[in-house]
Amino acid sequence: MDPNTPQAHVERPFELERIIFFSDAVFAIAITLLALELKLPDLKVQTSGALLTALANDGTRFFAFGLSFWIIAALWQGHHRYFRYIVRYDDGLIGRNMLILFFTVLIPFTTLVLGEYGTIPAGCWLYALDLGGVGLADAALWHYATAGQRLVESNLDPRFIRSLQIRAFVTVTVAGLVILLSFSFSAYANLAWTLLYPIQRLLRERYKAYPSAG
Amino acid sequence: MDPNTPQAHVERPFELERIIFFSDAVFAIAITLLALELKLPDLKVQTSGALLTALANDGTRFFAFGLSFWIIAALWQGHHRYFRYIVRYDDGLIGRNMLILFFTVLIPFTTLVLGEYGTIPAGCWLYALDLGGVGLADAALWHYATAGQRLVESNLDPRFIRSLQIRAFVTVTVAGLVILLSFSFSAYANLAWTLLYPIQRLLRERYKAYPSAG
Amino acid sequence: MDPNTPQAHVERPFELERIIFFSDAVFAIAITLLALELKLPDLKVQTSGALLTALANDGTRFFAFGLSFWIIAALWQGHHRYFRYIVRYDDGLIGRNMLILFFTVLIPFTTLVLGEYGTIPAGCWLYALDLGGVGLADAALWHYATAGQRLVESNLDPRFIRSLQIRAFVTVTVAGLVILLSFSFSAYANLAWTLLYPIQRLLRERYKAYPSAG
Amino acid sequence: MDPNTPQAHVERPFELERIIFFSDAVFAIAITLLALELKLPDLKVQTSGALLTALANDGTRFFAFGLSFWIIAALWQGHHRYFRYIVRYDDGLIGRNMLILFFTVLIPFTTLVLGEYGTIPAGCWLYALDLGGVGLADAALWHYATAGQRLVESNLDPRFIRSLQIRAFVTVTVAGLVILLSFSFSAYANLAWTLLYPIQRLLRERYKAYPSAG
Repeated sequence: MDPNTPQAHVERPFELERIIFFSDAVFAIAITLLALELKLPDLKVQTSGALLTALANDGTRFFAFGLSFWIIAALWQGHHRYFRYIVRYDDGLIGRNMLILFFTVLIPFTTLVLGEYGTIPAGCWLYALDLGGVGLADAALWHYATAGQRLVESNLDPRFIRSLQIRAFVTVTVAGLVILLSFSFSAYANLAWTLLYPIQRLLRERYKAYPSAG
Repeated sequence: MDPNTPQAHVERPFELERIIFFSDAVFAIAITLLALELKLPDLKVQTSGALLTALANDGTRFFAFGLSFWIIAALWQGHHRYFRYIVRYDDGLIGRNMLILFFTVLIPFTTLVLGEYGTIPAGCWLYALDLGGVGLADAALWHYATAGQRLVESNLDPRFIRSLQIRAFVTVTVAGLVILLSFSFSAYANLAWTLLYPIQRLLRERYKAYPSAG
Repeated sequence: MDPNTPQAHVERPFELERIIFFSDAVFAIAITLLALELKLPDLKVQTSGALLTALANDGTRFFAFGLSFWIIAALWQGHHRYFRYIVRYDDGLIGRNMLILFFTVLIPFTTLVLGEYGTIPAGCWLYALDLGGVGLADAALWHYATAGQRLVESNLDPRFIRSLQIRAFVTVTVAGLVILLSFSFSAYANLAWTLLYPIQRLLRERYKAYPSAG
Repeated sequence: MDPNTPQAHVERPFELERIIFFSDAVFAIAITLLALELKLPDLKVQTSGALLTALANDGTRFFAFGLSFWIIAALWQGHHRYFRYIVRYDDGLIGRNMLILFFTVLIPFTTLVLGEYGTIPAGCWLYALDLGGVGLADAALWHYATAGQRLVESNLDPRFIRSLQIRAFVTVTVAGLVILLSFSFSAYANLAWTLLYPIQRLLRERYKAYPSAG
């Protein structure tokens, strides 16, 4: 397939839907598998107090689970957003999309590491590298799709294109910040992930200003 | 996206379908993962008697599995029902839908806790809080979608809207009842979940009376 | 929803598709989870001979995996066949479909029991009861959908309807046969499952004769 | 269904989509389950050094995971490619497609064996036999679909048909090569899998030359 003439696929939307469908299924499985890592406490005395204490001791795992759930949800929503404007596909898009999925299927594993070893620097790194990888793959896909309007409508507002590009780099930036913080404050570095939400919200406010993005 | 003008999406049903699809996949994975928790008995003597005894000893786990299967099935059917009438979407809907899915992916874990520690009060609470969470998220989504006909057809019967709202609170009410009962009768409190079926059936009978709900 | 007027849904095929989609996802997850039960051999000496011996010792598990894969594949194909002719839906159909899925999500578990304890009678029974359950649920769904042409096209050939009904009972019959055989020849009773293929093939030949079934 | 008259299904694309959908779901689940095999290191001392050493010691598992991810991705893309041109279906197609899925759901298991025992010959064989099986099933499906234009458009270029047939045999050939190499260089035989990418790329270049394949 020649990336210069992907228009040949415009009238075959089922192909593009199949790529989106496959990605959605991977996101859905990854987000549901997260909860498989939550371990049943092994109680010696079967009392409410013992169960609540055991669950409280697993607090880091629950934090890691909750964090990853909402991050995968946001990644899916971002993916959703890109493909709202992508109207054609080629092998280059499929490759970059697979790169997103590669880092996504690793999230349940890196979440497990985070939940268990999140208070030591290297435990933060693995998770941060994984999410930073998704962010970079997101940026690569959106850049590829929009450069010269390769796979999007030709009238898509350049400022809107740039705004989504910036949003992809937010994950990469926060990942870098977590790694940086991990050297000095490893026990709390992962709290920086919660910055994702207000930053994304701020950028979403700005994006509303571009009418063409409706 | 301005929630006051979500109509811009009416002519793009594929977007809404993708949200529904993602949700369906999460429901399907959660309901199938339930059975992964059923443990293979470890028999010392390989006889039919030993196997049947071992399975009977796991009775609580089988009860928890069956209960959760039919509850997730009902939750999916409820979700199905809401989205039959939702014709537009915005970020507010996606957020509330993600909240439903958050509590849904936790069900296999809370079912595991219920199967193992369902006879002590705190074991009931975790499961009840999880299901109560789904119920509240359901109610929040339906309220958001229907307030001022935000995301539904403008001619949808207000009495029908209210009937679905009431049904969402049934789960919340039964969850509250289970927690209440757990203090005095923890061994049997979970049997109250079986009330869900006759209550939902009763409400369905009533709802039939509204012709606009066809 | 009044089952006497399900025609109201004919012009909303997306609803029916969502039921089919949900079912397909459950079948797909169940069939893929089967392989999760295959255990990595724990070798003391890392040689080819030791690995092959260990795998050969797990022969019953591989037989159980292969058997269940092809049985779920056939069940999915049967489901596919029913829904090719079902053009409307109502709550009765959803309930019976959920019953099919209930027994289907149990298959990875009963396969595990079969692979480990398939040579003792009760190990056969669990698996046979599970598959017999799917068969009965299949028959119930097809009977419900076709009685008085409730949910199918009114011109569907009665002989074709009956032929699919008979095929649903094949699984039930073989399940009964396996249970019967298990009392005397428990080690080999499960081989009777392989009868499913030639019987289904034979019935498919007969069904070809009905032109309306094209 | 008579394979000589599968045209009867042309006007029912939903049926074919359901087969594709089911396959996509199986591919998506298999590719996501791969990461479930990555084990959380069990650290005695909780330091960054200990974690990184433990992860480095699991290097073979990570290699096996990465390899299988990209191979399943390529298999999915190949499947995608076949079904872009398949416009009808019959039971013969469903059977061959199930054979592809049978070998695909086994990949997480054979990857596990590869990650643990990939340096002994028999560890290579299992994985190679599994992937060789997918390759042969791919070839069988494409041959069946295209022989006498059975299930494809009648004007599909024979040279293009042949080019996809050749590509299916690349996996089979590399699998054979790995088995061959395993006898003498078992520790490095699996590196031959990386040949898949340049060979497929080379063949893709050639295929571009056929304009009818657009």
